[in-house]
Amino acid sequence: MRLSLIRPSDMHVHFRDGAMLRDVVPQTAAQFRRAVVMPNVPPIETADDARAYERKIREAAGDAAFRPLMTLKLTHRTTPAMIRDARDVAVAAKLYPAGVTTASHDGIGDPDDPGLLAVFEEMQRVGMILCIHGEAPDAFVLDREATYLDVVRRIVGRFPGLKVVMEHITTAASARYVEEEAPARIAATITVHHLVHTLDDVIGKGGIRPHHFCYPVPKRPEDLRALRRAAFHSTSGRIFFGSDTAPHPKGAKESACGCAGVYSAPVALPTLVELFLESGREDAIRRLEAFASTNGPRFYGLPVDESDTISLEDGPWTVPAEMGGVVPFRAGETIPWRVA
Amino acid sequence: MRLSLIRPSDMHVHFRDGAMLRDVVPQTAAQFRRAVVMPNVPPIETADDARAYERKIREAAGDAAFRPLMTLKLTHRTTPAMIRDARDVAVAAKLYPAGVTTASHDGIGDPDDPGLLAVFEEMQRVGMILCIHGEAPDAFVLDREATYLDVVRRIVGRFPGLKVVMEHITTAASARYVEEEAPARIAATITVHHLVHTLDDVIGKGGIRPHHFCYPVPKRPEDLRALRRAAFHSTSGRIFFGSDTAPHPKGAKESACGCAGVYSAPVALPTLVELFLESGREDAIRRLEAFASTNGPRFYGLPVDESDTISLEDGPWTVPAEMGGVVPFRAGETIPWRVA
Repeated sequence: MRLSLIRPSDMHVHFRDGAMLRDVVPQTAAQFRRAVVMPNVPPIETADDARAYERKIREAAGDAAFRPLMTLKLTHRTTPAMIRDARDVAVAAKLYPAGVTTASHDGIGDPDDPGLLAVFEEMQRVGMILCIHGEAPDAFVLDREATYLDVVRRIVGRFPGLKVVMEHITTAASARYVEEEAPARIAATITVHHLVHTLDDVIGKGGIRPHHFCYPVPKRPEDLRALRRAAFHSTSGRIFFGSDTAPHPKGAKESACGCAGVYSAPVALPTLVELFLESGREDAIRRLEAFASTNGPRFYGLPVDESDTISLEDGPWTVPAEMGGVVPFRAGETIPWRVA
Repeated sequence: MRLSLIRPSDMHVHFRDGAMLRDVVPQTAAQFRRAVVMPNVPPIETADDARAYERKIREAAGDAAFRPLMTLKLTHRTTPAMIRDARDVAVAAKLYPAGVTTASHDGIGDPDDPGLLAVFEEMQRVGMILCIHGEAPDAFVLDREATYLDVVRRIVGRFPGLKVVMEHITTAASARYVEEEAPARIAATITVHHLVHTLDDVIGKGGIRPHHFCYPVPKRPEDLRALRRAAFHSTSGRIFFGSDTAPHPKGAKESACGCAGVYSAPVALPTLVELFLESGREDAIRRLEAFASTNGPRFYGLPVDESDTISLEDGPWTVPAEMGGVVPFRAGETIPWRVA
């Protein structure tokens, strides 16, 4: 069996740099129309940084049709002028609370800092999207996302023209906020691993699994259910796919202090097909198109080319145990779909 | 500075077998008067198993004063006759719910099984203590202990003469149950790592830390506070120290699926001194004696020899990064107390 869908866009990826970048970019470029590229490794703070990084990614992609969408990292060094300068090269800027995850030590300490508010003001003016890693670093690990919702609410209330993406949401509370409370200019991405895992898959199934570990950590079964409900059934157009694919070398995961990040790019799309088909909806593939192919670009104000499609075929595929020194999501599992 | 306390007893240890046993037993024997030895690795199901294992431990201890207290592992094979036969060699029998932790696949599936109830009946008759790893394996990892409390309540209600130790409790709910609800024949052990860690220390501080991973997993900050309150301040005599020290080779921890267990024996006593002194109680060392030296043996009906003491001295001690291929609790940390 074969099925076809509008070529998806991955609205949240980590491409890293150097040899790692050259290994991982082609995986995303082969399957996705676009990818929103996170700016933490290497740090992308200026228009020039973004242009140079975009060039590297395009070279590595080897597919002229693939379009990396660049973002800026917000730090205490960011100024309104830097936003203005980058308006043509960066679609978004990313807020990392300081210390919240990989390479975020120089992220935002005080979300009410006047300098930062001036930056948000300029983003609002030029139409640059604000992407938020919404976790309060000082809160208990399971409460960080819920705690940071108050900061998100404050930013959203202060800047009535700012578009905001809450990245990789993991809780029922965040899904409820986007779907029931927030204005239409607020959206959220959901990863594929957060549609599969709870905390049980990290520390609850007979061992501790660093390859399932990321920030935000996956939460409770009821949170997983709420995320699936949003991904499979939402019609708001404001819930869309961002894999947060984040490769680390195997040795940096299987260690006394393993890094946060799940490398899902090679297996994200087949897994999404599997999940949506299991959702029981008759229009599962059309729902998947909304989630993975059209909602994200539309929210970003980008065209959707319905004639550009990708095919998947059934037949078991065993995910490699390792790809370029990185252990991918679902390594070693035999899964029912693969990209044709 | 030097301080002295009645030599403590560790009411919950894992000694393993072979070379590992010969490495770890002397660490415990050098500091503790006794240790209650868990029966899962190697499996100890009969009186003969217990006698043979006790011999190995005594040989490895190299200290004739150290007394291993043996336990039986309850499985579907356990009979009342096996309990009767073991009454002189085993002080307790251990209930592992099937699949709940390391080497528990043949543990107890149905806690209401008539054969098991006959075993409990016999334990009650001969005065053998029931030690319980109180987690419901099928529940979400953070709910397992709270869910299993109902099973504990049922056992306690059914056998009014059975003494029960809830091992390594990790929640405010369990502490409350023992202190406020349960009859006087119910006690609980608390480990040293559960007096230091929350889940943040496993997955919440910038990485995933397999050497801090055990079952039950440490829980929330309010649970840590409740455990500390019980350890530092309880006067019931039914809260006592069991380290659950559980060595695994470094490679079995730093892996794609790391084993559960914290190897705390070498550092448990200095850490307890540090914690109790920080509790702010003027009688901190007397409280530590109750927790670590007298409550446990008294609950087990064993004599306490107040003239047998151990000394600790201050002055920084850097915990080795590795001991016999195992990464100990607080590896590499410089801590303020050491055994003299």
